[in-house]
Amino acid sequence: MGNADYECPHPVAIPPTKPFFKALGSSLKETFFPDDPFRQFKNQSVSRKIVLGLQYFVPILEWAPRYTLEFLKADVIAGITIASLAVPQGISYANLANLPPILGLYSSFVPPLVYAMLGSSRDLAVGTVAVGSLLISSMLAKEVNPFENTKLYVQLALTATFFAGLFQASLGLLRLGFVVDFLSHATIVGFMSGAATVVCLQQLKGILGLVHFTHETDLMSVIHSVVSQSHEWRWESGVLGCCFVFFLMLTKYLSKKKKAFFWINAMAPLTSVILGSLLVFLTHAEQHGVQVIGHLKKGLNPSSITELAFGSPYLTTAVKTGIITGVIGLAEGVAVGRSFATLKNYHIDGNKEMIAFGMMNIAGSCTSCYLTAGPFSRTAVNFNAGCKTAVSNIVMATAVMFTLLFLTPLFHYTPLVVLSSIIIVAMLGLIDYEAAIHLWKIDKLDFLVCIGAYAGVVFASVEVGLVIAVTISVLRVLLFIARPRTIVLGRINNSMIYRSIDQYPDANNVPGVLILHIDSPIYFANANYLRERISRWIYDEEDRLKSCGQTSLHYVILDISSVGSIDTSGISMLEEMKKNVDIKGMKLALANPRSEVIKKLEKSKFIEAIGQEWIYLTVGEAVAACNFVMHTCKSNAGEMEQNRQDDNV
Amino acid sequence: MGNADYECPHPVAIPPTKPFFKALGSSLKETFFPDDPFRQFKNQSVSRKIVLGLQYFVPILEWAPRYTLEFLKADVIAGITIASLAVPQGISYANLANLPPILGLYSSFVPPLVYAMLGSSRDLAVGTVAVGSLLISSMLAKEVNPFENTKLYVQLALTATFFAGLFQASLGLLRLGFVVDFLSHATIVGFMSGAATVVCLQQLKGILGLVHFTHETDLMSVIHSVVSQSHEWRWESGVLGCCFVFFLMLTKYLSKKKKAFFWINAMAPLTSVILGSLLVFLTHAEQHGVQVIGHLKKGLNPSSITELAFGSPYLTTAVKTGIITGVIGLAEGVAVGRSFATLKNYHIDGNKEMIAFGMMNIAGSCTSCYLTAGPFSRTAVNFNAGCKTAVSNIVMATAVMFTLLFLTPLFHYTPLVVLSSIIIVAMLGLIDYEAAIHLWKIDKLDFLVCIGAYAGVVFASVEVGLVIAVTISVLRVLLFIARPRTIVLGRINNSMIYRSIDQYPDANNVPGVLILHIDSPIYFANANYLRERISRWIYDEEDRLKSCGQTSLHYVILDISSVGSIDTSGISMLEEMKKNVDIKGMKLALANPRSEVIKKLEKSKFIEAIGQEWIYLTVGEAVAACNFVMHTCKSNAGEMEQNRQDDNV
Repeated sequence: MGNADYECPHPVAIPPTKPFFKALGSSLKETFFPDDPFRQFKNQSVSRKIVLGLQYFVPILEWAPRYTLEFLKADVIAGITIASLAVPQGISYANLANLPPILGLYSSFVPPLVYAMLGSSRDLAVGTVAVGSLLISSMLAKEVNPFENTKLYVQLALTATFFAGLFQASLGLLRLGFVVDFLSHATIVGFMSGAATVVCLQQLKGILGLVHFTHETDLMSVIHSVVSQSHEWRWESGVLGCCFVFFLMLTKYLSKKKKAFFWINAMAPLTSVILGSLLVFLTHAEQHGVQVIGHLKKGLNPSSITELAFGSPYLTTAVKTGIITGVIGLAEGVAVGRSFATLKNYHIDGNKEMIAFGMMNIAGSCTSCYLTAGPFSRTAVNFNAGCKTAVSNIVMATAVMFTLLFLTPLFHYTPLVVLSSIIIVAMLGLIDYEAAIHLWKIDKLDFLVCIGAYAGVVFASVEVGLVIAVTISVLRVLLFIARPRTIVLGRINNSMIYRSIDQYPDANNVPGVLILHIDSPIYFANANYLRERISRWIYDEEDRLKSCGQTSLHYVILDISSVGSIDTSGISMLEEMKKNVDIKGMKLALANPRSEVIKKLEKSKFIEAIGQEWIYLTVGEAVAACNFVMHTCKSNAGEMEQNRQDDNV
Repeated sequence: MGNADYECPHPVAIPPTKPFFKALGSSLKETFFPDDPFRQFKNQSVSRKIVLGLQYFVPILEWAPRYTLEFLKADVIAGITIASLAVPQGISYANLANLPPILGLYSSFVPPLVYAMLGSSRDLAVGTVAVGSLLISSMLAKEVNPFENTKLYVQLALTATFFAGLFQASLGLLRLGFVVDFLSHATIVGFMSGAATVVCLQQLKGILGLVHFTHETDLMSVIHSVVSQSHEWRWESGVLGCCFVFFLMLTKYLSKKKKAFFWINAMAPLTSVILGSLLVFLTHAEQHGVQVIGHLKKGLNPSSITELAFGSPYLTTAVKTGIITGVIGLAEGVAVGRSFATLKNYHIDGNKEMIAFGMMNIAGSCTSCYLTAGPFSRTAVNFNAGCKTAVSNIVMATAVMFTLLFLTPLFHYTPLVVLSSIIIVAMLGLIDYEAAIHLWKIDKLDFLVCIGAYAGVVFASVEVGLVIAVTISVLRVLLFIARPRTIVLGRINNSMIYRSIDQYPDANNVPGVLILHIDSPIYFANANYLRERISRWIYDEEDRLKSCGQTSLHYVILDISSVGSIDTSGISMLEEMKKNVDIKGMKLALANPRSEVIKKLEKSKFIEAIGQEWIYLTVGEAVAACNFVMHTCKSNAGEMEQNRQDDNV
């Protein structure tokens, strides 16, 4: 059964092998510089190149010259709005991280200024984040008690912030931003919802006015801690808390109902703080079980370079905390930045954002700030208030500076329960059950990842949730490679197009020919599987043909259009397959081998073994060649049969 | 620019969604039972099913009835041949594992019998393996000194063997055989060569007659150990060793030159042992620095169930050793079995083999045997001696039984240096530099994996080498997913076929249309990359068109034939892409979405958003539709232009 007579209409090209270092260079470029940031530098003078380079690393130089008064007006309004949110949120989240409240205010001063210069998002509002604060308290409080050993605890938090920044900046500089991509949307939804649930539960401490509370973050520990102290619940605190939660929820609901009420929602936290403080001041409730913030030091951020505890025995804990909070902060921040950039249709450079986040955290850790990122809630308020550029962050920082310089005494009587209420309402918005339902509808595995992350965070710990989600996600990718699909193709009516018989039930089998499509690169991880699965297809097809009483199987065509790459194990698999098919008296043909695959097949002499004439550009041409040979043989056989009969006569 | 008038010749089918549990069931079947072992049970009576089931788990029941006298003759010859190899090798490898030499003989008695019943390979010769022995000594000797605390050390080795068997059998029963596939051919080549190098170096102890020697396996430690003891080298031992190495190498060389000399090679180790023992016995060399085996207990394997140290404080070490040696043993054994099965054209069931290996090690651990697998050298001898079935293993076991019962005193004077020579020559055959050169030629990354494994084993430790190789292999798979290629397609001359412009330089761009082929499933891990890379393609194409002064870009066609799967992050990416393309005033079209992808696109309403009329079965049809619309528009525009000119006139 040769097909030497059949003329192949479109031969398959074997591109020449590139020199090793050229190939390596181009694949490194594809891996690390997919967006080709050097493009704009091409064909420019040296001075222009320097300017462009500066603008690349310090984006403010790029847009500042085009800044207008109109932009300024919008940015000032947005900046003051987010400042009214930043002050109470800053104090609340610092409280959540078991850090002195003043650190929350400091963190809304320096980092936004750094980000305004280096960041490429126009909408991101910088500040402390709930999940990061929770992570810091849950990871550091295991090692050092924040109330008994406050100084060391603060030092470790600052050190962790430093390493978070260092890690973020390195990821950006080394163009390893794709590490963050391994936290999928599903992971983040589950993780954030879990963290929000845990944070809400933690606020029971503030709402119920409890003094002692567990350091664990899991559901069981928190419930145990709350229930076992039921005799210490303070009703005054509870009632106040419920009122404020109700007030904040109401404003949120109103702003959702009607766009014009947006300002009510934006101002509600500050209003609550003012109302709460007045109430406590007037009724002296601090003497009746309502805990207050107490004394806040006046003045700007003190330097904290000497506080970075590089020599501490807890350094590894600080580094670990830094890396985890850094990655989470980046994942949330970059995702938030990207979503709002899409709304306004501009582009965000992930690696540049990472450098900006890293620099702002490094700078922060030297000026008494703890971990900052781009919280969703504050960014949404910024966007809705009509911000135009990162100048709104500068305005916010200036407002916070004034607060630090002159207004800190006003927070003396602010009750902790108000802060808890603010956190609870912010967190309830993060529990994104609608996204989870959407995941379930579209992709069950994504839903599993999401629920795994959620359950891990709520029932075990934040780290466990993260590990579960990343493990499931990576296993899914590996499973896809280890178990690629093989699909039987048939001919679509009235065409030369071959498609999956499962997807197109009308597609027809070609008699005597089995056409299989392989769905992934052929690697060591799936070579054995593919061999077994393809043998089974051949057995099954033979059985089917036998039971139908049709012609037997003569050809196996492998459609390898989707095989983007092959390794030596894969080539051995093909060689073995060819042997097995030969022994059965069939012929193996390949359709549409791609550039890299055919190069390797040629180098390993597989093409010589199978014969260049059994490699086709399309499945259609391969089938045509097979049919041509089958018919020639049949007519030859028929002729011979005829001759034999003639002889017999 | 609508294309409502254009009639699509072949609509894309959206297959109905399968019920959740049915879909889950079929995907589990594809994952765990690719070879469909239940196929033969279909439509059979109950009694037949029981017989088939027994035959499935105990393959000897299947082939024993068809066993002939002719087979027996061949198997006896092969069995005796491998026994002559098994006895000296058994003693040598036990020595390598720092275990009493008699355990090596025990291990060639019980496990081969078990394998003969359960194994599906006809050629595999069972016995102890050099790499397994090395691993046991390097991992256990770290915890327990084999010379000072021999009893505990032996107990741990037996316990490790038990867990190796348990792990192997579980992998087989749970149909997780693909775990072994993650050790690619390249990994095994590098790892085995590294281990062989290390084992050779370790033999310097025996050759030079050293008494003290390092427990570390890395190059530096061994060289240091040898050099620092240069005053204790024994020349008698060294000369003897060199002679035997030369003799064994010579026989190996001869057998390679001429097939008829094969027997010389097979018998050489036993001959060396006999010659060496005679020499020592006659010259009393044991009193002049030539170490000998000494007393070996007569009798068959004693039971060792009570020796399994489940309560030992070193249990975790034993379990870890068991799992690592078990996986390595499996990977080598299954690969060896498969290669010889391919030569004789029969099929080996990986999962069944795992159960057989597991049971033979569990049985072995209860009868004073340590880890056994299917060594390549012994299997090759078995094959060359003309074995027909696993009966050759039974013959070998019987011969070893005789040795144990009657011949052990003969080994009293066997010099250790002969054993070292046997190991060295066997190991030199495992250093497969030709395979490494082949890897370099065909696949640079596979070569890197191989060299990584080799260097890790030689310069650090056996475990480090393994970890390096598996990490590189898995990273390669992840990188493939994280950085899929996107390829620009063009039309092949005189056809409707669209192929990569890189591979087919003759292929023509279609004016005004950019056709991109995506090379892998679209997942969270690559969604961001793909978005950036595709935007860059669009920018680049616009630049190119601008510089040529050609028509601008109107259409972007994504060929997603190779996109086997998509997750929610991938769908968001497509939605964003569509928005970006729309904003530029272009249109996005999809070509050949596959079954799973189109189902998810429909569920997520993406098809509604893009419009069913922008989804085509082939790239050719998509281009035809685009051209149709472009020409209609142009002629419309031309008409309008004409009208305008007419008006002006």
